[in-house]
Amino acid sequence: MILVDGKRTNRISALDRGLAYGDGVFRTMRAERGVVACWRRHYQKLCSDCGRLGIEAPAEPVFAHDIAILVENRPDCVVKLIVTRGEGGRGYAVPQPTVPVRVAASFPAPSGETSLFRCGAAVRWCITRLGTQPALAGVKHLNRLENVLARQEWSGSEFVEGLMLDQDGNVVGGTMSNLFLLERGGLVTPPIDRAGVAGVQRDRVLEIARRIAVPCDIEAVTPERVMAADQVYLTNSVRGLWWVSSLAVRRWRRNDLTAEFARLLRQADDD
Amino acid sequence: MILVDGKRTNRISALDRGLAYGDGVFRTMRAERGVVACWRRHYQKLCSDCGRLGIEAPAEPVFAHDIAILVENRPDCVVKLIVTRGEGGRGYAVPQPTVPVRVAASFPAPSGETSLFRCGAAVRWCITRLGTQPALAGVKHLNRLENVLARQEWSGSEFVEGLMLDQDGNVVGGTMSNLFLLERGGLVTPPIDRAGVAGVQRDRVLEIARRIAVPCDIEAVTPERVMAADQVYLTNSVRGLWWVSSLAVRRWRRNDLTAEFARLLRQADDD
Repeated sequence: MILVDGKRTNRISALDRGLAYGDGVFRTMRAERGVVACWRRHYQKLCSDCGRLGIEAPAEPVFAHDIAILVENRPDCVVKLIVTRGEGGRGYAVPQPTVPVRVAASFPAPSGETSLFRCGAAVRWCITRLGTQPALAGVKHLNRLENVLARQEWSGSEFVEGLMLDQDGNVVGGTMSNLFLLERGGLVTPPIDRAGVAGVQRDRVLEIARRIAVPCDIEAVTPERVMAADQVYLTNSVRGLWWVSSLAVRRWRRNDLTAEFARLLRQADDD
Repeated sequence: MILVDGKRTNRISALDRGLAYGDGVFRTMRAERGVVACWRRHYQKLCSDCGRLGIEAPAEPVFAHDIAILVENRPDCVVKLIVTRGEGGRGYAVPQPTVPVRVAASFPAPSGETSLFRCGAAVRWCITRLGTQPALAGVKHLNRLENVLARQEWSGSEFVEGLMLDQDGNVVGGTMSNLFLLERGGLVTPPIDRAGVAGVQRDRVLEIARRIAVPCDIEAVTPERVMAADQVYLTNSVRGLWWVSSLAVRRWRRNDLTAEFARLLRQADDD
């Protein structure tokens, strides 16, 4: 089901700046039994991302209403929200006034998650690197060609995810996930100030680690450091936290801490 | 007037990957008396840009037909073409098969060009820098948030264009134009292999310079080098070639070579 500005339609304006320039932001979330996990955090991130682009985010109840319609129709699903700057003419200058446009859509929930947790994920290195752009780093905006190019490097179901480096050769994360390394009982995650998306689950892992007194550092991560980690985790809001079972020649077995991290991340926190 | 896949409509699918990820390319061209200047070059560039993203470009006659409809309605206009990868589901992976979608639209031709040529353009420096991304540099893709952010740095009609630096502090070009410097009778333009768009008119200026035996080098351009140039030119396919009359504290008067470059660029070449 797709709602555009709250109306049931699958069409948007061909002059929308979301299409013309990727001028907008999005969120992908998991709904279970009609409830979107971490909704307040997602809405806060949506607002903060809109703020980075100078887009006025629609009010929270407007989205809550869209989501209610989506989950009534399909209680267990993936919910995707897009906010664009709205319709424009030609040219990069933002016409005044612009009215932001929102798209809310539901998609089938992914399958195979139990097996993902039990067996871990086969992951690969991507050749496509993330660009260096501090002005947009962290924001989940609609300029995602880098992720598309990286995801085109493989097909089939052998690999769940690909890891991407930045222009300096440091690891930023997966094409659709944030990265954590377990090293001697502590966590490490790469900074997201020059490339990549700062996901809601990344924030939550950092908070959980603090709460349970597991050291967690934000540090540059080389590919060698990933290969040497005791365990590698990937996080996003659709699948939560999962672990990497293989990457190039390296194999991992599930660490004792992994189940605990996954469980804590699954606990509802702010809603 | 807007055509989506040749049909007169101003709506596209809300699931189009052009919206979701900026997964597509575009062209902006000038039509005069029903003829799009440099159409064959534009079509070649469209195909080559599509190729960089792994999108199959629609055939030339398909676009020619769209354009014929647009210019019949409005013979003097700006024509914009978009090719997206087409509709997708959720996720970066490209579904197989995908059917590219094309949007063709006409917009009013810009005014004030004679005065732009006579008086030159007031130009400013942008704070927003272009990201470093060799995998996408040169391509006129739909991921244009950097340009949008830069163009948001000013409003009003005082400045025609803003110049953007790359992450290393070198000048790449304007938010919507390529840059040339005139230095002791020769031209210099920045490389477009790490950021920026390699415009059709940039290629043409390089060719014209070769033809009339004006040296033209592709070299890194610092802001200081711009300020010290004998003349600064900007080029795009809507306005051709124009000259910069002011940038920060620097003022220029029109150089004798400027009229000649503008005239040569206006000559129809390949159609």
